[in-house]
Amino acid sequence: MLQTIKKIGVLTSGGDAPGMNAAIRSVVRTCAFHDIKCYGIYRGYEGMIEGDFVEMDARSVKGIINKGGTMLKSARSTKFRTKEGRIKAHEQLLKAGIDAFVVIGGDGSFTGAMIFNQEFNFPVMGIPGTIDNDIYGTSHTLGYDTALNTVVDAIDKIRDTASSHNRLFFVEVMGRDVGHIALNVGIAGGAEEILIPEEDLGLDRLVESLRRSKKSGKSSSIVVVAEGDKIGKSVFELKDYVDQNMEDYDVRVSVLGHMQRGGSPSCFDRVLASRMGVKAIESLITGKSNYMVGIKNDVMELTPFDQAVKGKSKINMELLRVSDIMTI
Amino acid sequence: MLQTIKKIGVLTSGGDAPGMNAAIRSVVRTCAFHDIKCYGIYRGYEGMIEGDFVEMDARSVKGIINKGGTMLKSARSTKFRTKEGRIKAHEQLLKAGIDAFVVIGGDGSFTGAMIFNQEFNFPVMGIPGTIDNDIYGTSHTLGYDTALNTVVDAIDKIRDTASSHNRLFFVEVMGRDVGHIALNVGIAGGAEEILIPEEDLGLDRLVESLRRSKKSGKSSSIVVVAEGDKIGKSVFELKDYVDQNMEDYDVRVSVLGHMQRGGSPSCFDRVLASRMGVKAIESLITGKSNYMVGIKNDVMELTPFDQAVKGKSKINMELLRVSDIMTI
Amino acid sequence: MLQTIKKIGVLTSGGDAPGMNAAIRSVVRTCAFHDIKCYGIYRGYEGMIEGDFVEMDARSVKGIINKGGTMLKSARSTKFRTKEGRIKAHEQLLKAGIDAFVVIGGDGSFTGAMIFNQEFNFPVMGIPGTIDNDIYGTSHTLGYDTALNTVVDAIDKIRDTASSHNRLFFVEVMGRDVGHIALNVGIAGGAEEILIPEEDLGLDRLVESLRRSKKSGKSSSIVVVAEGDKIGKSVFELKDYVDQNMEDYDVRVSVLGHMQRGGSPSCFDRVLASRMGVKAIESLITGKSNYMVGIKNDVMELTPFDQAVKGKSKINMELLRVSDIMTI
Amino acid sequence: MLQTIKKIGVLTSGGDAPGMNAAIRSVVRTCAFHDIKCYGIYRGYEGMIEGDFVEMDARSVKGIINKGGTMLKSARSTKFRTKEGRIKAHEQLLKAGIDAFVVIGGDGSFTGAMIFNQEFNFPVMGIPGTIDNDIYGTSHTLGYDTALNTVVDAIDKIRDTASSHNRLFFVEVMGRDVGHIALNVGIAGGAEEILIPEEDLGLDRLVESLRRSKKSGKSSSIVVVAEGDKIGKSVFELKDYVDQNMEDYDVRVSVLGHMQRGGSPSCFDRVLASRMGVKAIESLITGKSNYMVGIKNDVMELTPFDQAVKGKSKINMELLRVSDIMTI
Repeated sequence: MLQTIKKIGVLTSGGDAPGMNAAIRSVVRTCAFHDIKCYGIYRGYEGMIEGDFVEMDARSVKGIINKGGTMLKSARSTKFRTKEGRIKAHEQLLKAGIDAFVVIGGDGSFTGAMIFNQEFNFPVMGIPGTIDNDIYGTSHTLGYDTALNTVVDAIDKIRDTASSHNRLFFVEVMGRDVGHIALNVGIAGGAEEILIPEEDLGLDRLVESLRRSKKSGKSSSIVVVAEGDKIGKSVFELKDYVDQNMEDYDVRVSVLGHMQRGGSPSCFDRVLASRMGVKAIESLITGKSNYMVGIKNDVMELTPFDQAVKGKSKINMELLRVSDIMTI
Repeated sequence: MLQTIKKIGVLTSGGDAPGMNAAIRSVVRTCAFHDIKCYGIYRGYEGMIEGDFVEMDARSVKGIINKGGTMLKSARSTKFRTKEGRIKAHEQLLKAGIDAFVVIGGDGSFTGAMIFNQEFNFPVMGIPGTIDNDIYGTSHTLGYDTALNTVVDAIDKIRDTASSHNRLFFVEVMGRDVGHIALNVGIAGGAEEILIPEEDLGLDRLVESLRRSKKSGKSSSIVVVAEGDKIGKSVFELKDYVDQNMEDYDVRVSVLGHMQRGGSPSCFDRVLASRMGVKAIESLITGKSNYMVGIKNDVMELTPFDQAVKGKSKINMELLRVSDIMTI
Repeated sequence: MLQTIKKIGVLTSGGDAPGMNAAIRSVVRTCAFHDIKCYGIYRGYEGMIEGDFVEMDARSVKGIINKGGTMLKSARSTKFRTKEGRIKAHEQLLKAGIDAFVVIGGDGSFTGAMIFNQEFNFPVMGIPGTIDNDIYGTSHTLGYDTALNTVVDAIDKIRDTASSHNRLFFVEVMGRDVGHIALNVGIAGGAEEILIPEEDLGLDRLVESLRRSKKSGKSSSIVVVAEGDKIGKSVFELKDYVDQNMEDYDVRVSVLGHMQRGGSPSCFDRVLASRMGVKAIESLITGKSNYMVGIKNDVMELTPFDQAVKGKSKINMELLRVSDIMTI
Repeated sequence: MLQTIKKIGVLTSGGDAPGMNAAIRSVVRTCAFHDIKCYGIYRGYEGMIEGDFVEMDARSVKGIINKGGTMLKSARSTKFRTKEGRIKAHEQLLKAGIDAFVVIGGDGSFTGAMIFNQEFNFPVMGIPGTIDNDIYGTSHTLGYDTALNTVVDAIDKIRDTASSHNRLFFVEVMGRDVGHIALNVGIAGGAEEILIPEEDLGLDRLVESLRRSKKSGKSSSIVVVAEGDKIGKSVFELKDYVDQNMEDYDVRVSVLGHMQRGGSPSCFDRVLASRMGVKAIESLITGKSNYMVGIKNDVMELTPFDQAVKGKSKINMELLRVSDIMTI
């Protein structure tokens, strides 16, 4: 028999991403729409363990759809990785009468939710929020589209100064395990080369490629480097290598850093967040649990947590080829 | 036997859209990559009839990927709608030795290309460029994503002043036949109501909905209206109606206008344009003709022109429901 | 003997402007710095009459420096224009123990404050907040710099589409009495003509100028029109006149509207707001009253209200000449 | 007797800055307005020595007013620092019939121009273009206002993620010798501390200040650090020091880098550039030489090169006090 859900908690966990606030808003308002009470859980699983809850209604989330970051704050919790911590969290939820929760975060957060569900048979649902777009079961994670635009805007600015001075820039962007951001902003920013975790271009081929590009009359160059690129060198080591192996190049480095995580979410991320919040709550209402909400081919779909955390989002190899052709 | 293509023309036609320059760049560079000569055709079919062509190489399209508008300029050609005009255009292409052309535009432009292909058996390929996203055979047209962000940014600004003064704003956005822009920016901008061509909300229900929203404690409201909304009233008539039927509401109107067509393309539109240009040229090379390039589920696909121009891109009804829930 | 000020109220009045929140924040924090209690007064003089006050401390204004609009909301109050209304307001202030207030607004708001001061000998101080920059005694009003950038960004977008289609655009910008916005954005946006309240170009000279510009090879044109331009025609009438008197011109109109009032304040406006808040509170503390805070040559200066409201901010005639030279 | 000037050269030199293109446009069009021929000199003094000149007319500078960087490119020339190099440059100018030149750059570029003027009695005029605003004789250099907005936008984004995670961020901004950028963006970005070259806060006081800010309930902090801050430690060393001396703080570093130099110029910078170009050319026409054009209290003024390069632009100490009050 289906247990009626009366109170749902919502938390953001792991690294923050633009669109998290829009997702919180959607979760809260969908609860209100279905006459379910909703509680905000502060600072991720850390706040769950401490019972840091606050009741939220439709007006609590007013004016946040266009704000970056997360009003519920986020954290990485080491305590929640212990059985002891999770027992404490469970007690806090029971004490507050919370029947289910929605966690907005990445695969680490989903693993925690999955274990919690197994241990206490507690209804949980996940919404993928991370700028890296590295989660299996959804074509887009919240914040990814916004981050792409933030990074492209920064590269456009760097291009202004690069081409004024005939310089070569190594621009490091986020993406530890997958090269989605690097690959897309590389194409959109007109980069000469793109170094991603999925492919080892090799230092020699990089230098060769830069030489060819110089010969073909290009006076400035931008090389986009994902944090976790295969070459395994920091952007500063790359600069040194090129400095030593290429003449007549004024080489500079720019590490875009945490700026990439912030900013007002794009239209796409706001709509996606709104849809995911509705789907998460309505799935819990119909008795579903232990799933991540995702978008595939513009349709909301559920993926079991174990698949979502085991799987890996793959880059589109067509884009590598497009990038090669564009840099002719 | 496959006729080898040696010279390809490229033109932009109809209303301009962000990403058209990125698509021109991609067409030109893909031609260069395959050792095909490429000619820019100015001012759409008008320039084709006048033989206003210029040869372009990889360097001709330098620095345009992030520029709005179209460097080849665009126009609506009445002459090309006549047999006479098309014969003239055909002569000009032959004279320049052009074997095939790629037209970047909307369904009017594709209809022209299709007829031209039928009359002269001339290889043509289309790339959908219009902010309205109203073309069958592709989930996204070039410029649509950029326009969404431009409009949402404007609505955010209007929201600032609306909520400072407890005002109601009718914001008119583009979209004559389909409500894609209105529906998405309405959700992303937190609009209380969204009036689209696909659905007739009715004036009475609009007023009722605004009354309900006021009662629930909202002090300001934004109603997004697509140009071609079903109610069939201009935003100014809507304002008058609400002025007469609701007390205590300070009602204002904002028509966003042509600003929506401009601006630097988003990352998504730049990547999409790059992919579409590659696909268009490589399809022509392999002997295909009379197709529009589109994107479906992140894969490049071809749709025959006759289907593309007959079909109609549909709005996602799930979004209407999400919008209703969000405005609780 | 100097009466010690212990409680200060702050309100925003008239049209909202970017930077008002930053000014509220500065007023509140400067009060906290000097151990003075601070009260927010909601909805301008309307809320003063109704006693709609809330105590604010340094944390109340957290995270608002970069937000458009005004968290205290604004309104135009007809009641405050009556003696009766002002008596009521005075009673409310006394009841709450408020010793002085700072009003952030335009000259209408300052006139109200000046009369109030005369009637009740109540300490008041003004901070100029309006995008129009039409106030005497300060080179910049709050929100003006932000609005300039918002409008220029919109004109850049319109230029994209104008030059893609060889069109002429009339762009109406705010500025009922003075042409500051029109003049500056006209130069910055590369406009062919600028119509301002201070100068009557005349319709014939406008058409002549557009003809000359066309002859000199310009394919698109933008004419910036201030709301209160001297010709006294709406942009739509201007369009009609040009339609009838010039061939070969595709004329369009764009009215930028309320979007111009919103958005995150520029760096300049945030710093200016912070400085003005400090100056306003510290002036009240030292016994000054009935002044508007202004900036002149990068120094904070006080102007008596009666001068501020009688005087008129003048446009810089040098700019008209620069504009003429730039459109050669 | 006044020698008539018939051909003027224009170059950009040193680090590029937003607004340089707008200044080139203004120089070129003011020349056209006065029937003087204008030549673009590529890559600063380097191109002058190589005779890399191109004639420019009013149409050559179309569409560049809103572009970052410099279309004439820039460089630092070691050759021009030698007598030999300057003799070569002089010969090239004579050969091309150029009577005078305008250099857009910083104090290094002006020193070069001044020496050149002394050696060859050659008419020269300077326009201050650098984001650092470190030049005596003008309240604003070209690019400074734009850079302020670029940096504030980045800090707003970093704030989103900082406050979601209760983190402390050290944000390094440009400004080797003067703290203008750091001081203004620090106030505008709501920074807890601002480290500038003009003032040595001291590491102990920094830590103390951060402790106080934490105690007062602030959960996240941003410290803005100018490149050339007095403490003389890199941001990474600052991070280490705080890591070792403060518990419970998750400290991160963000070096904004070259992004700060790029981007479309603000309205202010475009108007300033337009005015400066007019002033530079019309000053040369009236026989003036060896001056830098500047803006003081919204009026164009000339400062002799020797004063401009010897003097030093000072920060406004009032701002330091405002910053202190704001961080209460």
